[in-house]
Amino acid sequence: MSKLTIALDIMGGDHGPPVILSAVQKAIHTLTDTHFMLCGDESVIQPALEKLNADEQARVTVIHCEQVVEMGEAPTSALRNKKQSSMRRALELVQSGEADACVSAGNTGALLTMAFYLLKTLPGIDRPALVSDMPTATHHRVFLLDLGANVNCTSETLFQYGVMGSVLAEQISGIKNPRVALLNVGEEDIKGNAQVKYADQLFRNASGLNYIGYVEGDDIFTDHADVVVTDGFTGNIALKSCEGLAKLVIHEVKRLTQASFFSRMMARIALPLLKNVYNRVNPDQYNGASLLGLRGIVIKSHGNASADAFYYAILQSKQEAEMKVPEKIKSKIETVLLEQL
Amino acid sequence: MSKLTIALDIMGGDHGPPVILSAVQKAIHTLTDTHFMLCGDESVIQPALEKLNADEQARVTVIHCEQVVEMGEAPTSALRNKKQSSMRRALELVQSGEADACVSAGNTGALLTMAFYLLKTLPGIDRPALVSDMPTATHHRVFLLDLGANVNCTSETLFQYGVMGSVLAEQISGIKNPRVALLNVGEEDIKGNAQVKYADQLFRNASGLNYIGYVEGDDIFTDHADVVVTDGFTGNIALKSCEGLAKLVIHEVKRLTQASFFSRMMARIALPLLKNVYNRVNPDQYNGASLLGLRGIVIKSHGNASADAFYYAILQSKQEAEMKVPEKIKSKIETVLLEQL
Repeated sequence: MSKLTIALDIMGGDHGPPVILSAVQKAIHTLTDTHFMLCGDESVIQPALEKLNADEQARVTVIHCEQVVEMGEAPTSALRNKKQSSMRRALELVQSGEADACVSAGNTGALLTMAFYLLKTLPGIDRPALVSDMPTATHHRVFLLDLGANVNCTSETLFQYGVMGSVLAEQISGIKNPRVALLNVGEEDIKGNAQVKYADQLFRNASGLNYIGYVEGDDIFTDHADVVVTDGFTGNIALKSCEGLAKLVIHEVKRLTQASFFSRMMARIALPLLKNVYNRVNPDQYNGASLLGLRGIVIKSHGNASADAFYYAILQSKQEAEMKVPEKIKSKIETVLLEQL
Repeated sequence: MSKLTIALDIMGGDHGPPVILSAVQKAIHTLTDTHFMLCGDESVIQPALEKLNADEQARVTVIHCEQVVEMGEAPTSALRNKKQSSMRRALELVQSGEADACVSAGNTGALLTMAFYLLKTLPGIDRPALVSDMPTATHHRVFLLDLGANVNCTSETLFQYGVMGSVLAEQISGIKNPRVALLNVGEEDIKGNAQVKYADQLFRNASGLNYIGYVEGDDIFTDHADVVVTDGFTGNIALKSCEGLAKLVIHEVKRLTQASFFSRMMARIALPLLKNVYNRVNPDQYNGASLLGLRGIVIKSHGNASADAFYYAILQSKQEAEMKVPEKIKSKIETVLLEQL
């Protein structure tokens, strides 16, 4: 396999370049077959590179960028005014083919807007989707999309999400014929709004997809489906609600630390478990959330990501690049649409 | 205060009449100023009444009903074919004014459909909503609506839900000027779909409501708002997702019971807490969910409700009847709509 190149936005994220650079150093050490293009302030990046050996340094290119997209900046403003930003440069490297994938922990809205503008969607895909995998009891991965990239979805968009999610589950998790389900308020045919009902018809009429029908909200965390499809409005609210509940449970358990000896003991053991669950369902924490449906690979790492989490996002970008996920989506959507004619 | 009358569907629920009757006996004992109309199979109800004293028996009327709405029955079928059912009779007693409120643990869809058909909505209210209160860290109540009564909502419907929720929070929780919020994917003005953005305008233009703008999914479980408004599709999925997460957390904690001594100890203490949280967020478990916006008081107790939970639903129906919630909603919506002219 020829050497892959990954572009990294060094300036994004709440904790700034030090945390990102720590992850990048680890990636350079471990992914010895990968070239890295580091976009950001050269004066910040260079000191971190001095610790690398000659072989490692040879696998790194620094792209000096004058600008940074701020975390609170309006996406349209970033698109218009931050043409020299590290985020934009990383995306441009994917656009030009110089990089096979890019990763940013910066402003999600700006990344979505810039990526959509620069990379465009694949033929047959109307809108990109943000997708991440959810925890389940059996520890198999359920891919949930859209998590908020697109709050106005047509039935056709939902159908395209199903195709995209199916490809991701197959390529990343190695699941043959991933089970694709539509999120709805009930499993019966009569349930749901018009958008979901028509999407159900589109799925039923399509061949080449393992569509299993409707699932309800609680099935996101079970082994019922490999891919759960919903619009970005519902997906975002479902995930944020779960985040809120997880926070509440942690809060209640913490209260126990002020109680009896056994309660304190319990809380000490329970908290890491609960925090682990919390981190996995926190939509702002999901790391390596893929922006799917574009003509290039873009991974969104959370702004508040730790070095480990950003490292994981880099691994994920590499895996998607190796599996050529966009090409596979393009091919799958062509097949499915062609068979519908 | 004149004696209130509450109609009870004795036949609904997964566990059948025994559990319901146990709750009813408790209610008859404790609510000494209340008359109860028990709708169901007389031969099932009568034995339970024999344990009552003469004074208690004087506060009970049995309405024999030949039919039962099955838990899995289609709502339209129940509406058409179950005119002699205990559920329908309980609703008819509210419709005729013979009862001040009714409670059922039966088929939710059938109850919604029959209640809408028989009781009609209040003037100015397009559709009823299912509302329940969510747990929060500060133990104050957040009323979330709609939980699934109406999956197709207009902006106007969302606005009406806000008015209804505000009245409920004021009357039931005694909160002056309850904070009403719209559920959205972000707190900024630019966020959201067209339906939510226009509803936001309706709220901003209305006087007499303490509208605080958008909240995100995690704020359902915080002290940000007293009333959180969303459409029945999103509300149901958000709540069911939380149920799924709660189940997952309980599952993971249970796994620990197979681990070390301390883990087992922990799990033993943590499980009741987690189950308590689970029961409170389980949308199928929410007890005393109000069907709001109708010309009468209808409380939905969960099919799987325990006797305690059904008893709580009876208390809630009594409280809403005492506070004359439908009249207050009617008056509030008139005021708000009049001020908009």
